[in-house]
Amino acid sequence: MTNDQLAQRLLYAIQNNRVDGAGQIARQALSGLADYCSQAHLTEGDIQQACRLARQLQRVRPSMAPLQQLLGTWLREVEQNDLSFAQAAAHAMQLVQYSKEAVAHSARAMVQRIKPGSVVITHSWSSTIRELFCLLSQWPCQAIVTESRPGYEGYKTAELMSELEIPCRLITDAQMGVWLEEADMAVIGADMLLEDGSVVNKAGSYLLALAAKAANKPFYVCCETFKRVDLFPSMVELEQHNGNELGAPSLAHVEIKNQYFEVVPAHLITEVVTEQASPQKLP
Amino acid sequence: MTNDQLAQRLLYAIQNNRVDGAGQIARQALSGLADYCSQAHLTEGDIQQACRLARQLQRVRPSMAPLQQLLGTWLREVEQNDLSFAQAAAHAMQLVQYSKEAVAHSARAMVQRIKPGSVVITHSWSSTIRELFCLLSQWPCQAIVTESRPGYEGYKTAELMSELEIPCRLITDAQMGVWLEEADMAVIGADMLLEDGSVVNKAGSYLLALAAKAANKPFYVCCETFKRVDLFPSMVELEQHNGNELGAPSLAHVEIKNQYFEVVPAHLITEVVTEQASPQKLP
Repeated sequence: MTNDQLAQRLLYAIQNNRVDGAGQIARQALSGLADYCSQAHLTEGDIQQACRLARQLQRVRPSMAPLQQLLGTWLREVEQNDLSFAQAAAHAMQLVQYSKEAVAHSARAMVQRIKPGSVVITHSWSSTIRELFCLLSQWPCQAIVTESRPGYEGYKTAELMSELEIPCRLITDAQMGVWLEEADMAVIGADMLLEDGSVVNKAGSYLLALAAKAANKPFYVCCETFKRVDLFPSMVELEQHNGNELGAPSLAHVEIKNQYFEVVPAHLITEVVTEQASPQKLP
Repeated sequence: MTNDQLAQRLLYAIQNNRVDGAGQIARQALSGLADYCSQAHLTEGDIQQACRLARQLQRVRPSMAPLQQLLGTWLREVEQNDLSFAQAAAHAMQLVQYSKEAVAHSARAMVQRIKPGSVVITHSWSSTIRELFCLLSQWPCQAIVTESRPGYEGYKTAELMSELEIPCRLITDAQMGVWLEEADMAVIGADMLLEDGSVVNKAGSYLLALAAKAANKPFYVCCETFKRVDLFPSMVELEQHNGNELGAPSLAHVEIKNQYFEVVPAHLITEVVTEQASPQKLP
């Protein structure tokens, strides 16, 4: 495989990963970069080819803060310190490890806010939610999981509940309001934490937050601080994907819209729970 | 076909009609009753067989007020006045006609509340919504239509927009919150109007109402007064159907929930617009 083919394959994988959360996609991109640094047919002077690939990876998923943050950190380190390919690959894998630990720390901080026996409603799929329920499976709890159209990420979440033997109810996104009554709290992951305390996450998260507020149930966001960006909601580019993903009929005068992400305003969020309870130093 | 087969076929059709609104299903039941009265091998003394079928029809869709109301009206008329089969069939068709006129009157009353050029967001499918957009197509307007999982009734609504050449955006239910920003108002039909001013409609309607309130946009319910029942929300049996309809994987510890209807509380509703602006006498 040529260098260009290696790069294209990675870009395609990141662009078309519609089921994983932003953190997982950032780790996938970093691991891919590490592979590129190890496998590509490059001479040491060509490190700029790897840096260009990192910048392209940032651009294909503009709404994903961890991709921007972690690749940005990697780029600074590589460029400022003139790293070798081996060093660049090692640094990418260090950042993957750091990111995984931040997820684990965030989930541990979140667990402390959940009483045993609680019913937790969640939307979509994220690494922190997976980590959280792995911890929660230690004691009695129940889950309510939305299917999360059009990607059905909720099926992945439901599979996790099944493996963990956590009693789970799987619902359509439209049923959120009705099932929130049965929940003690709502918890979601996040793709970005914005400057004003609002959060970007999968479409449907805002509706869940509205329903939680109306039912007077807490609404938590659990994620790592590298999802923070210095942007306000109006400055955020929210990903829209091809309408074909919905599988709807093609009709004259009808445009199929597929906006993936939306903003949950700060006033609907009880707390953003991150790893900062036990902070780590960026490697 | 035996009388029993005729009855079973009608009951099956009503029980399994998952795409039409409550008014349309009530009209389907009445037309079916009229056919039964005309086609069944009955002697004039057997009118109670038709009455029993009407009561069974009421029971198979307990959340559908028009079915209860219109069949109840028919039953009273048939039983109190000892109607012949021919008279009973004619009365059923009169009620169908009455119901259709009530829909048309409600839609005309609703149109008066919509300025030309408006963007109207709606959820699910109903006869009043169809009638409303047929009237709206006379002047410039736009629609935003949710797909309405799991039955995808929104595809029917989108097909209507396509036929009427009304510019339409079709979205997943999860995107309601984000697209409400683009709408001037939300309008839905209803399956029941409850005693306290709240409304029963397809799951997702409550989320749309919450989002409309949050965005400070009016939220209208347009329907006929025979959807009124003297029940409070806690007394209403909300239909739940088989989880298989979602098409989700079958997983241990995961129960698939498929609640069709939910209550939209009165305080989220700007106005319930009915045919009472120009009332008719029940035939």
